[in-house]
Amino acid sequence: MITVDEHRSRILDAVPPLPAVAHLHTDATGLVLAEDVVNRWPVPLFHNSGMDGYAVHRADATVGATLRVVGDVPAGSPDDPPMGPGEAIRIMTGAAVPTAADAVVPLEHTDLGTEVRAEAPESIVITTEPKDGANIRRAGEDMAAGSVVVAAGSVLGPWQLSAIASAGHETIRVHRKPRVAVISTGSELIDPSGTPERGQIPESNSVLLAAAVQQAGAEVCAVTRVPDDEHALRSVLAGLDADAVILTGGASVGAFDVVKAVLDGTGSIAFTTVAMQPGKPQGFGLGDDGIPYFCLPGNPVSVAVSFEMFVRPALRRMAGHTAIDRPRVTRRAAVGWRRRAGRMQILPVVFDDQTVRPASRGGSGSHMVASLADATALALIPAEVDHVSEGDLVTVMVLS
Amino acid sequence: MITVDEHRSRILDAVPPLPAVAHLHTDATGLVLAEDVVNRWPVPLFHNSGMDGYAVHRADATVGATLRVVGDVPAGSPDDPPMGPGEAIRIMTGAAVPTAADAVVPLEHTDLGTEVRAEAPESIVITTEPKDGANIRRAGEDMAAGSVVVAAGSVLGPWQLSAIASAGHETIRVHRKPRVAVISTGSELIDPSGTPERGQIPESNSVLLAAAVQQAGAEVCAVTRVPDDEHALRSVLAGLDADAVILTGGASVGAFDVVKAVLDGTGSIAFTTVAMQPGKPQGFGLGDDGIPYFCLPGNPVSVAVSFEMFVRPALRRMAGHTAIDRPRVTRRAAVGWRRRAGRMQILPVVFDDQTVRPASRGGSGSHMVASLADATALALIPAEVDHVSEGDLVTVMVLS
Repeated sequence: MITVDEHRSRILDAVPPLPAVAHLHTDATGLVLAEDVVNRWPVPLFHNSGMDGYAVHRADATVGATLRVVGDVPAGSPDDPPMGPGEAIRIMTGAAVPTAADAVVPLEHTDLGTEVRAEAPESIVITTEPKDGANIRRAGEDMAAGSVVVAAGSVLGPWQLSAIASAGHETIRVHRKPRVAVISTGSELIDPSGTPERGQIPESNSVLLAAAVQQAGAEVCAVTRVPDDEHALRSVLAGLDADAVILTGGASVGAFDVVKAVLDGTGSIAFTTVAMQPGKPQGFGLGDDGIPYFCLPGNPVSVAVSFEMFVRPALRRMAGHTAIDRPRVTRRAAVGWRRRAGRMQILPVVFDDQTVRPASRGGSGSHMVASLADATALALIPAEVDHVSEGDLVTVMVLS
Repeated sequence: MITVDEHRSRILDAVPPLPAVAHLHTDATGLVLAEDVVNRWPVPLFHNSGMDGYAVHRADATVGATLRVVGDVPAGSPDDPPMGPGEAIRIMTGAAVPTAADAVVPLEHTDLGTEVRAEAPESIVITTEPKDGANIRRAGEDMAAGSVVVAAGSVLGPWQLSAIASAGHETIRVHRKPRVAVISTGSELIDPSGTPERGQIPESNSVLLAAAVQQAGAEVCAVTRVPDDEHALRSVLAGLDADAVILTGGASVGAFDVVKAVLDGTGSIAFTTVAMQPGKPQGFGLGDDGIPYFCLPGNPVSVAVSFEMFVRPALRRMAGHTAIDRPRVTRRAAVGWRRRAGRMQILPVVFDDQTVRPASRGGSGSHMVASLADATALALIPAEVDHVSEGDLVTVMVLS
């Protein structure tokens, strides 16, 4: 039996980030930038107005001065109208400030106030004097051309993508999103909407994994259910085109453990027992095709726990993330529980600002599917601990 | 000028959750359940084995006893073989326990250990005596048929979806995901990859909003850029089929404020000023078509801030979420800054366990796009505060 950390290290050492690919920014949310993005232009690109108002010679714009309005520059206009002494140009927010001007007087600092007509007025009277450069956003004030606007390794959210667009880019280089195949094995599995005969159960593992893969920032490229039949599994595996494969069931020591029968010894794939509860039987390795195969136990809570401890960090590493782990917090146990020491307990829990308690609705064991529906975190109880007392500090891995 | 809270309330009062629709569970990640999901069957469905091992009469299974193995029940088998005195049935994890058995002895509690052959052995010797009912997961032990497994209002993550599948459902009723149209207005806007002339800038607002809408759990149904031209905007609006529309630019008092010109007074749409910095000019209301129109200012930081304060909570409410707000934490200012009191300051910031500081890379003002790329949160400084001193407690709205 190896420890949870040993198994995790073995997995993470085997899954480097996927190569960088060119990607349109409009479809890059959540991806990881593979190369620095630099400004193609200074930001802002040109001196522009921070307010709707009038571009002026500051020396002219004393309180009470009347200025003739000799032009009008809307946003987007290429115009650079001349402006003599005692003259002003009406200008809109974001528009290029005429070269001749050295300040912008906002609408509300003139006699005409903020009501704007389609036509510029003939003249205005200044009611508040501008400072030198007032309301002019200067070219390059935000960033110089060539400066790094978003660094390699950044996760691309709305704000980063906005900055990248402002920097003049539509195509960027990102780590490819892993395409993941999900295969649940078990002759007992039927469609959830079916009517189970004795011995059959609704299949839920592929539903859990498909959603979990998506939430990890990867893509589900195939979801398949196969019976405990080596030929059927081999045939499904042969048809895949994926960056990673997750299998559930058939990884234990049972006579019908088809996943182990088919994959053990292929490439570097090996089956082992990990000192965790639930989730003890685990298989992992790179197949002959060089991609990782995660062979998880079959019961749903084991699948949920194994995914969080091993698969999610690996998928995030493949996607180029450096922050691959869920946040952890410490809470006090609201109730105590006993357990057999020797394996790390990984328990679906609910928690608040102060405390944590098992999410189980009664009963115990790795088959308590219903407890998952209520849980918002996993408590991690070290292998050597044989009981948790009310008030003990517990490490909680937060899931959202 | 109205307060941020007043504008927010006006918006939230106008956007009820979207109606419930039937939805396949395989595509429901992140949606909100509109009706309780109950178990179609007891969970587990039938008494089943918690281990690979042998179903026995407990009274026979004393240490040293030899039991004849008279059958083999793999997972998924409908078999219920009879079992006389002194007899045992090999059984796999999850398989239905024969009616005649009252305990399961795991493989490792027999003389043959955990190595499993294709054929069941002829007999086994018990090395550890089972307790009554040992390793039998009893029908209904997890939940009774008809009991609620996931409650209306729950956000559907992997674990909830797994529980729903286990409960026998593939189709569920969820609140519809809002389909959102994004329109950026401005004759100065060009494609990010283009070469701007004097007065032009790369368009970034639609990129920001499309990504932000997706991250809020809604769907982008259209992304359009229109010049400052009333006819063009009317034509784009007429062609939409959306649950909500977000527009940027043209919401202020400028002469070319096309959004205001086209939408002010349509349905309940009204333009106002909100006591916030940035983001003062805001428009909102239901159009003649009954859907909400969010009319945001045009500069990118104002768009980012307006989305977080007003649009995101509204979209989440439409999607049926009850938790519509970002989490807030309190941190100490790592540096001080001065500001003009009167409007709530909403500032892109970075923060750690202890402190918070502006994300701006120098300069200030609502046009500092680059600061967004670094920011991980927004600091909320109350309207009446005219300076923040180093060490002051600051409210931080966390974005991830």
